[in-house]
Amino acid sequence: MRAGPSQEEIRRHNLSTLLRHVHLGGPASRAVLADRMGLNRSTILGLVNDLTTAGLVAEETPRDTGRAGRPSLVVRPAADHVYALAFDVGVDHLTAARVGLGGAFLARRSTAWPGAGEREPGGAADRLAAFARELAAGAAPGSRCVGVGAAVRGLVRHPDGLVRRAPNIGWTEQDFRAELADRLGPDTSVAVDNEANLGALAEHLRGAGAGFDDLVYLHGDAGIGGGIIAGGRLLRGADGYGGEVGHLIVNPRGGRRCGCGSSGCLEAEAGERALLDAAGRGPETTGPAAVRAVVDAADRGDIAARAALHQVGDWLGVGVSNLVNLLNPRVVIFGGILRDVYLSSAAQIRSRINTSTHAVLRESLRLRVSGLGTDSVLVGAAELGFAALLADPLESPAG
Amino acid sequence: MRAGPSQEEIRRHNLSTLLRHVHLGGPASRAVLADRMGLNRSTILGLVNDLTTAGLVAEETPRDTGRAGRPSLVVRPAADHVYALAFDVGVDHLTAARVGLGGAFLARRSTAWPGAGEREPGGAADRLAAFARELAAGAAPGSRCVGVGAAVRGLVRHPDGLVRRAPNIGWTEQDFRAELADRLGPDTSVAVDNEANLGALAEHLRGAGAGFDDLVYLHGDAGIGGGIIAGGRLLRGADGYGGEVGHLIVNPRGGRRCGCGSSGCLEAEAGERALLDAAGRGPETTGPAAVRAVVDAADRGDIAARAALHQVGDWLGVGVSNLVNLLNPRVVIFGGILRDVYLSSAAQIRSRINTSTHAVLRESLRLRVSGLGTDSVLVGAAELGFAALLADPLESPAG
Repeated sequence: MRAGPSQEEIRRHNLSTLLRHVHLGGPASRAVLADRMGLNRSTILGLVNDLTTAGLVAEETPRDTGRAGRPSLVVRPAADHVYALAFDVGVDHLTAARVGLGGAFLARRSTAWPGAGEREPGGAADRLAAFARELAAGAAPGSRCVGVGAAVRGLVRHPDGLVRRAPNIGWTEQDFRAELADRLGPDTSVAVDNEANLGALAEHLRGAGAGFDDLVYLHGDAGIGGGIIAGGRLLRGADGYGGEVGHLIVNPRGGRRCGCGSSGCLEAEAGERALLDAAGRGPETTGPAAVRAVVDAADRGDIAARAALHQVGDWLGVGVSNLVNLLNPRVVIFGGILRDVYLSSAAQIRSRINTSTHAVLRESLRLRVSGLGTDSVLVGAAELGFAALLADPLESPAG
Repeated sequence: MRAGPSQEEIRRHNLSTLLRHVHLGGPASRAVLADRMGLNRSTILGLVNDLTTAGLVAEETPRDTGRAGRPSLVVRPAADHVYALAFDVGVDHLTAARVGLGGAFLARRSTAWPGAGEREPGGAADRLAAFARELAAGAAPGSRCVGVGAAVRGLVRHPDGLVRRAPNIGWTEQDFRAELADRLGPDTSVAVDNEANLGALAEHLRGAGAGFDDLVYLHGDAGIGGGIIAGGRLLRGADGYGGEVGHLIVNPRGGRRCGCGSSGCLEAEAGERALLDAAGRGPETTGPAAVRAVVDAADRGDIAARAALHQVGDWLGVGVSNLVNLLNPRVVIFGGILRDVYLSSAAQIRSRINTSTHAVLRESLRLRVSGLGTDSVLVGAAELGFAALLADPLESPAG
């Protein structure tokens, strides 16, 4: 337990809070910011001046107020000149995006992965660094990159970002952060986190969970990942591995084998492979398109596809019930391929939750699909890239 | 997002931090406090003087330094004159304790419960208020009670403490806080929380989880309750119902019926009734003594008792595995009757965890029994009673 902050720390906190407001909430007048932050207008003016001098915000006439008369100036994030890079190391793709302060996606690059020689972290880092150079070359003159956030599907240690295990891409004990930092140069701040943690963060800040401090995000692709926001903060656990929802044991006796070595895990019973197997698709069939084909077949009335979604929905319901009993979330969000699976098996999931959770726990529970579509992980990676700047706007590593 | 604190808020924060240090850490010299809090000695002197004037601490010669020479004065909490009351509404007992600032138990009263006419919250409140008067009468002249914390086994809403459901004692939608406040008078600050949340808080602050910011506490009596500390804070969830570990579904197909209406819950498969049934004890056999008798029989080699503990241990292992996969705790603590059950089935629990969690997640995991014995819930209730004082030492309701 430490003592309270100094005057200088308070000023930094206020700069951080103001920049966060315009980054997440969009342009706002000084009067509105003063009201939201509980500060007087002269203090706000000083903070805005500091951030303007640093090139992080600008005061401008709002684009369209829809009202007569001279509008108040608004404080706008410097979206065109201050950006983060978001990297997503998927199971079958590598994606990079340049995201402006304020959250707008300005440009992106993507490739199928792994290509020849790219299975190793070094190969992925090579490709992403090449994307970074292309994205930087397309930015306005005088732009600066304030940080890079990268999403990896696996157990990622916090806070150093060491990838301990990423079975779906075959990595073990890989310092992917260092691989990226080597290629991006010493002036670039790089952070690595679990993909579903970043998806949860994104949905909490900008998506289907905006305004809710307690939520769970489930991300499905080859595996099932999870991220938990509890009391407004990412639940990391002791070492950063919190939220391994895919390895909740839902079927402890005689369940399907899981890639993790255990059996009966949620991922084994309700993941992509489980759905495709249940629908009678062969082992060579994989990927989001195959999942969507099963969902489409079910929508057309295909019996096997409907039975498969019913079965998978029941196991998802068991998993979600356990999340509800343990975490009392206000919202559970389905993203990645689980978005489609949820939309086709919602009745089954709800039915299981209704028998397996107490009425008090579900009275205010909402089940939602990702508000950011397929971009939630990438949006979260961008937020990770902005984190250092937002925490201390005038002292960020690349500032 | 609000602005940073004012000078006055910082002073209050510092008073709170200093009082918390001596309450939880014991007497300490001003020099030690200055070092721990990162403040200079003159600031510490001012804070100590304020707290001394308020009668919350006193500077005294340490009782025994074991060293020659004149010892430094230490700042000691006013344990004899400032106290909280801790109430525990058990399934078969009512307990009240007077606990001095600093955490020492000064006196306690307990009775079997429910007695005739006491099944209703009003009856329990009558008895606890009578205990409160007896405990106050035994306190030193000039003592003050700074708050009352009460533990109830059930779903307790946060922050108002409404008891939504407490099936093991038959309460529904009961404002037990108001029942207590009516009897204790308007000057007494009363708070109510779930028993396992309070157990978790106690173990985190003073017990087997001290020094760890991520832990789960499992409390067994007639049911199984749970409390989660994540990132150093109690995980409450959206409405305060977080940590319903007893209702994790561990056996979703064909599991035993649970009192909650579901089946296959951890409480149904590994609670008191499950153990006693598995050991062939009749339905009239209940309570901690009966559980201990099964554990003792197993220790003596009784085959049925050993098989029962083996079975219950396996289900506990499934439940703990799910906690580990989801929360990445550093410590899982077994309290109440689960203390004895754990000690007799640790091998089975560990075995299940070893097959059902990833090695990375269990590499630093510790399984421990409650460090506060049977008192963890009561210790947590006392901390709840002290919470308002510790948050704002000079402005607490009874201050």
